[in-house]
Amino acid sequence: MSSKPIHLYTLATPNGVAVSAYLDELKKQYPSFDYDFTKIDISKNTQKEPWFIKLNPNGRIPTIVDHTREDFAVFETSAILLYLAQHFDKNHVFSFNPETEPKEYSEMLQWLFFAHGGLGPMQGQNHHFNKYAPEKIPYAQKRYLDETKRLYGVLEIRLAGREYLAGAGKGKYSLADLKTFPWVKVHPYASIETLDEWPNLKAWLERCVAREASESGAKVGGFN
Amino acid sequence: MSSKPIHLYTLATPNGVAVSAYLDELKKQYPSFDYDFTKIDISKNTQKEPWFIKLNPNGRIPTIVDHTREDFAVFETSAILLYLAQHFDKNHVFSFNPETEPKEYSEMLQWLFFAHGGLGPMQGQNHHFNKYAPEKIPYAQKRYLDETKRLYGVLEIRLAGREYLAGAGKGKYSLADLKTFPWVKVHPYASIETLDEWPNLKAWLERCVAREASESGAKVGGFN
Repeated sequence: MSSKPIHLYTLATPNGVAVSAYLDELKKQYPSFDYDFTKIDISKNTQKEPWFIKLNPNGRIPTIVDHTREDFAVFETSAILLYLAQHFDKNHVFSFNPETEPKEYSEMLQWLFFAHGGLGPMQGQNHHFNKYAPEKIPYAQKRYLDETKRLYGVLEIRLAGREYLAGAGKGKYSLADLKTFPWVKVHPYASIETLDEWPNLKAWLERCVAREASESGAKVGGFN
Repeated sequence: MSSKPIHLYTLATPNGVAVSAYLDELKKQYPSFDYDFTKIDISKNTQKEPWFIKLNPNGRIPTIVDHTREDFAVFETSAILLYLAQHFDKNHVFSFNPETEPKEYSEMLQWLFFAHGGLGPMQGQNHHFNKYAPEKIPYAQKRYLDETKRLYGVLEIRLAGREYLAGAGKGKYSLADLKTFPWVKVHPYASIETLDEWPNLKAWLERCVAREASESGAKVGGFN
């Protein structure tokens, strides 16, 4: 077994990247923190094997195991981010203190859930119908392309005059950005060639990927 | 303006019901708590009007305004549930104390995010293609019916020997159940006539809807 606190099971997907980018941010911020990871080969359905289902009954990556808490397993990207924030980011560098910054904390959760329940699932369907589906179905292709663009438009308005999604003033790089940027980064998979239509979003994405730890984390699991 | 602490903007949808059911549970538990609500007519696109977009840039219900905190607005169903839990359920009756029950709290978040990013969006697409879409597209109808059933199967396994989704032992009725049950309740809209295939899920749904406050909350906005 690993002696590092966290073990990550992941793959080069936007959700996998959100977690590995955060883990690398934590490593940079807290030198005593570290993690190991295992790449999960979804082409072999490894994520549906009994040992993995014990960790995540939904059979999906990313999933983490916390060796510092009796190998407690956590699944769902955003639940993992919040778990790591609570236990390994005691200074709230990438989050907000719910007690002393309740509004900023709620803002972060609102945009985290916006990405978790809106952007991620809908852009995921866009990828499916516009890139992977065995049949070309114009109705579905358009439905999810339109919805992805609409959601980018919501982010565009939010980011007017702001640097990051949540926080006072221009905001602070937080879990909300970590969850969202890997999806926006893969916009070419969603039949969206450029972000020129959304200049605030484009500048924000550049800001997010310019972070060294976000970039190194994004390479865990093979994502570029 | 209302003198009650919370104002809810809602409609008879599974996400609307999750919040109104929780608000009624809070009213029952804390007699000093109360809320008002406004039904939003999405057939008139009220949720896209400028005054509403100021509250929720995504133009969706449910959304709340907290009159006790300078009319702070909160959108995204699960972010609303967590906000209400933090500020109005100080005894953690429907939640867990993150400091003293960190594992139970994380379990709750995991199942909350499972419903928020999996069951809700995928069953929503199922409703669309199997009930509302102007064209019948067998590929998409099957895709989302299969996924809804798979997700019900994940819940079925989780609920084996348990009463509720999160918490030690048989679990405790929490935000995770509140977010999930309104979706499972409308299974006929998802081309799933009965829950007989998932007996644990069926018993759990009966347990959830048998709660008086959940039922009264579910009627806010016209949902039956």
